[in-house]
Amino acid sequence: MKNKEYFFKVLDKGFVKLIDFIGSDEKVVLAARVSFNLKTKGEEKDRKLIEYLLKHEHFTPFEHCVFQFHIKCPIFVARQWMRHRWGSYNEVSARYTEVNDEFYIPEKFRIQDIKNKQGSIISENLNHEEIKKTYQETIENSYKKYLELLSKGVAREMARMLLPVASYTQFYWTVNARSLLNFLKLRLDEHAQHEIREYAKVISKIFEEKMPWTWEFFNKVYAKKD
Amino acid sequence: MKNKEYFFKVLDKGFVKLIDFIGSDEKVVLAARVSFNLKTKGEEKDRKLIEYLLKHEHFTPFEHCVFQFHIKCPIFVARQWMRHRWGSYNEVSARYTEVNDEFYIPEKFRIQDIKNKQGSIISENLNHEEIKKTYQETIENSYKKYLELLSKGVAREMARMLLPVASYTQFYWTVNARSLLNFLKLRLDEHAQHEIREYAKVISKIFEEKMPWTWEFFNKVYAKKD
Amino acid sequence: MKNKEYFFKVLDKGFVKLIDFIGSDEKVVLAARVSFNLKTKGEEKDRKLIEYLLKHEHFTPFEHCVFQFHIKCPIFVARQWMRHRWGSYNEVSARYTEVNDEFYIPEKFRIQDIKNKQGSIISENLNHEEIKKTYQETIENSYKKYLELLSKGVAREMARMLLPVASYTQFYWTVNARSLLNFLKLRLDEHAQHEIREYAKVISKIFEEKMPWTWEFFNKVYAKKD
Amino acid sequence: MKNKEYFFKVLDKGFVKLIDFIGSDEKVVLAARVSFNLKTKGEEKDRKLIEYLLKHEHFTPFEHCVFQFHIKCPIFVARQWMRHRWGSYNEVSARYTEVNDEFYIPEKFRIQDIKNKQGSIISENLNHEEIKKTYQETIENSYKKYLELLSKGVAREMARMLLPVASYTQFYWTVNARSLLNFLKLRLDEHAQHEIREYAKVISKIFEEKMPWTWEFFNKVYAKKD
Repeated sequence: MKNKEYFFKVLDKGFVKLIDFIGSDEKVVLAARVSFNLKTKGEEKDRKLIEYLLKHEHFTPFEHCVFQFHIKCPIFVARQWMRHRWGSYNEVSARYTEVNDEFYIPEKFRIQDIKNKQGSIISENLNHEEIKKTYQETIENSYKKYLELLSKGVAREMARMLLPVASYTQFYWTVNARSLLNFLKLRLDEHAQHEIREYAKVISKIFEEKMPWTWEFFNKVYAKKD
Repeated sequence: MKNKEYFFKVLDKGFVKLIDFIGSDEKVVLAARVSFNLKTKGEEKDRKLIEYLLKHEHFTPFEHCVFQFHIKCPIFVARQWMRHRWGSYNEVSARYTEVNDEFYIPEKFRIQDIKNKQGSIISENLNHEEIKKTYQETIENSYKKYLELLSKGVAREMARMLLPVASYTQFYWTVNARSLLNFLKLRLDEHAQHEIREYAKVISKIFEEKMPWTWEFFNKVYAKKD
Repeated sequence: MKNKEYFFKVLDKGFVKLIDFIGSDEKVVLAARVSFNLKTKGEEKDRKLIEYLLKHEHFTPFEHCVFQFHIKCPIFVARQWMRHRWGSYNEVSARYTEVNDEFYIPEKFRIQDIKNKQGSIISENLNHEEIKKTYQETIENSYKKYLELLSKGVAREMARMLLPVASYTQFYWTVNARSLLNFLKLRLDEHAQHEIREYAKVISKIFEEKMPWTWEFFNKVYAKKD
Repeated sequence: MKNKEYFFKVLDKGFVKLIDFIGSDEKVVLAARVSFNLKTKGEEKDRKLIEYLLKHEHFTPFEHCVFQFHIKCPIFVARQWMRHRWGSYNEVSARYTEVNDEFYIPEKFRIQDIKNKQGSIISENLNHEEIKKTYQETIENSYKKYLELLSKGVAREMARMLLPVASYTQFYWTVNARSLLNFLKLRLDEHAQHEIREYAKVISKIFEEKMPWTWEFFNKVYAKKD
């Protein structure tokens, strides 16, 4: 990790940054074998073991690899994110700090998907310019009123109640590889909202680089299942 | 639970409703003793045991008592709430359902507390009427624009990005007594935000009624400690 | 639960007893819909929803159903059991209580399975009588020496170090339906040890009776996947 | 970690080895501030923040520091250890591997403590030589019979049922600093069994070296409380 920066922009103002990492495909193998002698059994056997573990849902050896991220994303994305309980979060507080003028402004808007009640799809039938203008003006108004309340002496923790869920927030996230695979499976899924999928895609690239065999077989095993 | 409704209004439009409960002070005692013969050792000894468990932080016996709530609260409160990971949540989704015209409108606004950087206090120096008007108009504007985007065909999951964190949401919460005590300790604390403390107060009343000895000694032990 | 006893003998001296339960298939449906109005949408739609949730691994609604068991099993089984971390355990302590003369004595012994390095199979080539005699005498000797050490004044927590992992222990177990399904999937598997599978089978019968639709679709979905 | 080996012998044949670690006192401070700019505010302020976090039980920032150990200890110690659920374990399996001739043989035996029903104390009234002889012979007999059953073809997973809880086992343990502090508090306590306290003592030395400020204030805050 010394020579490489893992920093990726996501959406219009967000990012994913890998801060720290311990582990490797080999660590999974060692933990599974509890062999402790720090020797692996050769690439072919190690790869087979990883495939076996994923196939039979023996997930504990993956818990010994730990990722640590710094994330910047809109609140509505953070809300979906933090439903994943097996991980550690420390988030910036709008009670303690004044909120910056940073909101998620989409390039294109999506219409309700008729087939998928939760989903949405890009449509050229929308007047994107007009919608974006309405959207942006509403958010700017909310932010202006937020500042106005602050200037009148209202406490930060109350003034922020006006702010939209499009507001950007930031947090530290420490998560083991098992829990992260679960996050990726659910959040890369086409039923997940577009915005969080963008984060999941970037994180999956980092995962793949750090634990390539695990990622390879995870996809193979779960692609098979559907 | 049959003859009594546990339903309490909180803030202007929220509520706490106890849906289900298993356990009792006696269950804690039985679990601690793993006596299983369904006999207790008499009130005095049982009370002493509960005090001992709390004092020495032997919290596992309290995990066998389980509360199930239906909560309605603003999003910024739900965000603080769901940081408590040892519990189960199912929340209404703004991706699936159109959001109602329900927002938290405080009666009085608070100013920043100078001593406590996160805190706030009621002040008569504020022009409450004027501030409330600004606050309410901003929220009404956001909601109007939300409906406008919906009417133009924008998907629910995108239109809702405008909505303020003052929006009410609802969720199911299943939590054991150990985790609930931890929630109450942190959220009844004077450093917690006023709004979530209002919920914590109501829940503490329910807790006290269901597990009176545990509540009594919990307060005694933790009051001592400070 | 009022009119029926859920008590089942397992192995030679163990048992599974259901002490308490909250939930139902309907509760899963309600939590998933967060409909809260306590109305379901009719059997056909409710069944479909449960199938959908299991198929797409939306497991949180199942967490609102909670089982509470009293278990008696050998220590080596309890060791496998308590690796399941998302649940609450209170176990009898051999530090506090003198251990009874209760050990698991198998009727038949199994030989190492050549195909499955962890597994074992019943074989008529073994001299079961002779093996059982050796096994039983060894355990009786250990227990006799345990009592001897106690009589000489050795503390319980030290004398018990002699006792075999075949010793029976007892514990309270509170677990939600999601975590219990995970337990059942792993412990009903043919790779699990015969003894814990016997417990899993009994528990699966209780599960089926309490949440029949969930059990039906859980089996359907997971049978498909292999 | 490169230049120093963290390997410590515990009891007669056990050990604690630190395999990996991410974090530092500074990481706690950064996570608490979510400052992310990788700058601290100077030693004095950083130390004060750590004290504040521990005093007010804001434990999440400590979750971003992760320890990874390889442990060798007797089964009865491992049983107490694995009751700590917020951590990851991978243990050697007696189903898969033949168990070695390694058992915990105490130097001195303890008598039951009259004041503390769970506790024990060293006493010179015991005939340590005689007791040790009985203890050791019993264990040797169990191990001999274990090998005998194996030689007759009995599967490993059955033959091991004879083996005493004094048998040594090994496991990988990945745990964050918050959960580790909780482990240390409970297992350094004088109510904990002597044998697991020996492990806790060694681990506390490693903790102190890796996170000296956290350790200093943790002791200060919790010493005060009693």
